[in-house]
Amino acid sequence: MGEFDLIARFFRRPARNAVLGVGDDCALLQPRAGWQIAVSCDMLVEGRHFLEGVDPFTLGHKALAVNLSDLAACGATPVAFTLALALPRADAGWLEPFSRGLLALADAHQCELIGGDTTQGPLNICITVIGEVPVLQGRSQALLRSGARAGDDIYASGTLGDARLALEALRGHITLPADELAAARRRMDMPAPRVALGIALRGIATAAVDLSDGLLGDLGHILQASQVGACIDTAAVAGMLAHGRHLASSALNASTRLVCVLSGGDDYELVFTAPPQARVSVQAAARTSATPVTRIGVVQPESGLRLVDAQGAEVANVFRSFDHFA
Amino acid sequence: MGEFDLIARFFRRPARNAVLGVGDDCALLQPRAGWQIAVSCDMLVEGRHFLEGVDPFTLGHKALAVNLSDLAACGATPVAFTLALALPRADAGWLEPFSRGLLALADAHQCELIGGDTTQGPLNICITVIGEVPVLQGRSQALLRSGARAGDDIYASGTLGDARLALEALRGHITLPADELAAARRRMDMPAPRVALGIALRGIATAAVDLSDGLLGDLGHILQASQVGACIDTAAVAGMLAHGRHLASSALNASTRLVCVLSGGDDYELVFTAPPQARVSVQAAARTSATPVTRIGVVQPESGLRLVDAQGAEVANVFRSFDHFA
Repeated sequence: MGEFDLIARFFRRPARNAVLGVGDDCALLQPRAGWQIAVSCDMLVEGRHFLEGVDPFTLGHKALAVNLSDLAACGATPVAFTLALALPRADAGWLEPFSRGLLALADAHQCELIGGDTTQGPLNICITVIGEVPVLQGRSQALLRSGARAGDDIYASGTLGDARLALEALRGHITLPADELAAARRRMDMPAPRVALGIALRGIATAAVDLSDGLLGDLGHILQASQVGACIDTAAVAGMLAHGRHLASSALNASTRLVCVLSGGDDYELVFTAPPQARVSVQAAARTSATPVTRIGVVQPESGLRLVDAQGAEVANVFRSFDHFA
Repeated sequence: MGEFDLIARFFRRPARNAVLGVGDDCALLQPRAGWQIAVSCDMLVEGRHFLEGVDPFTLGHKALAVNLSDLAACGATPVAFTLALALPRADAGWLEPFSRGLLALADAHQCELIGGDTTQGPLNICITVIGEVPVLQGRSQALLRSGARAGDDIYASGTLGDARLALEALRGHITLPADELAAARRRMDMPAPRVALGIALRGIATAAVDLSDGLLGDLGHILQASQVGACIDTAAVAGMLAHGRHLASSALNASTRLVCVLSGGDDYELVFTAPPQARVSVQAAARTSATPVTRIGVVQPESGLRLVDAQGAEVANVFRSFDHFA
């Protein structure tokens, strides 16, 4: 099958919201009057972002999910995306489930595939996603990394660390019951981008970031951009691990739990800040979006990231975030 | 050097037209009121789109040029782009010239780098470009592939086939004088996207496409989308090869010339159609954009692509276009 047939067969569908979709030199979109557009781009490489031989359906889901997660962190409503795909060979048996996983998530978020590129090469998936955010009374409602202020609460959504927990089990570092491993692995393979929460937090959160490389590193981006520091309650964070509860039974395992929640990547939850007087609004946004949120710390004026336990005693920070070239 | 330092060092610059540029989860753009946005995406893989060991400066140029060429084919004004880069290693000696080549062309077209991604992996460059096109009296001014009508003239811009000529010489299939090879190779390595011509053709051309995979294949996209056929004057097309003039001296070499102009890829010229009564306007657009255009054929109502020589006699079509999975 040739390149053009391949694209048509799996990825070309009639344009819905786009003025012009897949199939010309460019796609065309008509932006909503007065809104801004938000743009983000992620590249996924085999062996780096996903394991060789991963189920193509879940891979299609995840490739778009990590991009929608960036829109969520910005409070943007998804609109459209492009897909560039390098494949060792044009394999319909792989492309069919991949496109199904991808387009199912796209449809769930009304985010339309409008164009892209396919080529022969080592497996590589690059998606660029476009969303939109309103501007109210001259002020963009986008959530940025730079708006956190000393005294703000720090929140995280959903559960943390389960993707890393699955990875540690798959690597043989820990042992999990089969049902827990399956559930944790689902968090790694099929992350749910927190788009509804991001939208609900417009005008409430002062800063936000999505968790791809780990809580400490990604929160660090907020702190750096906002020129503030933070104190994180490790007990609150440790409680956000959904699976592997039995691991708390030894000191070593308690440490594994902390590694998972503090520096485990691939959670695709949101971490955000909001002033204490917005606590009721934050909980309302959580309800509106059916997404649990947990208060995990506080923004401090002095730079640096401190960890404390439930009693407020300092915890040594021996955790680190993921660097793609480290 | 870590991933984030790397990005900051070579690719982060203050935002110019963007509301928010590189460095947050998303970039933000404020679209021009009433205009549409045009989006295109191309992925370049080593060994497939460029030779191993190619000069990183020219590669940076070419990676953006092929994307700007898609905007040109659509008649769009460049606005911004994202860059995703998979690299075997974070090598400043490669990234510095690559970013220089890329950003020099970006600056020349006032097209701003607003975000992207870098990761470790086999060399892969994926750019998504965003442009804008006006809507006049409710009609989009975008040039599409689907607007060609029987009786329209067919034009090509600039020169054709020189990138393929260089490739044939580098492969040892033909011999070129050193200065001709250098000039032809420059066409392969440093294509000039016809952005100004595309913009000048708004409201004049009925259909357009850019030449990436070869004249016959890319013109075929217009014919298919417009449900028409075409007759191409091979003598007019053969005259568009800028280099390798001495190759006309034998029948075999004349055939090589035709292969270069008809099925040679990587030209990044525009092929477009316009009604005969627009000939003066087409030439005015060519002058405005300082881009020569040549009339190479005519759109016909019956499907299929016919080739004729200067005397109007049929030429057998033994040429084919490039398929990335063939």
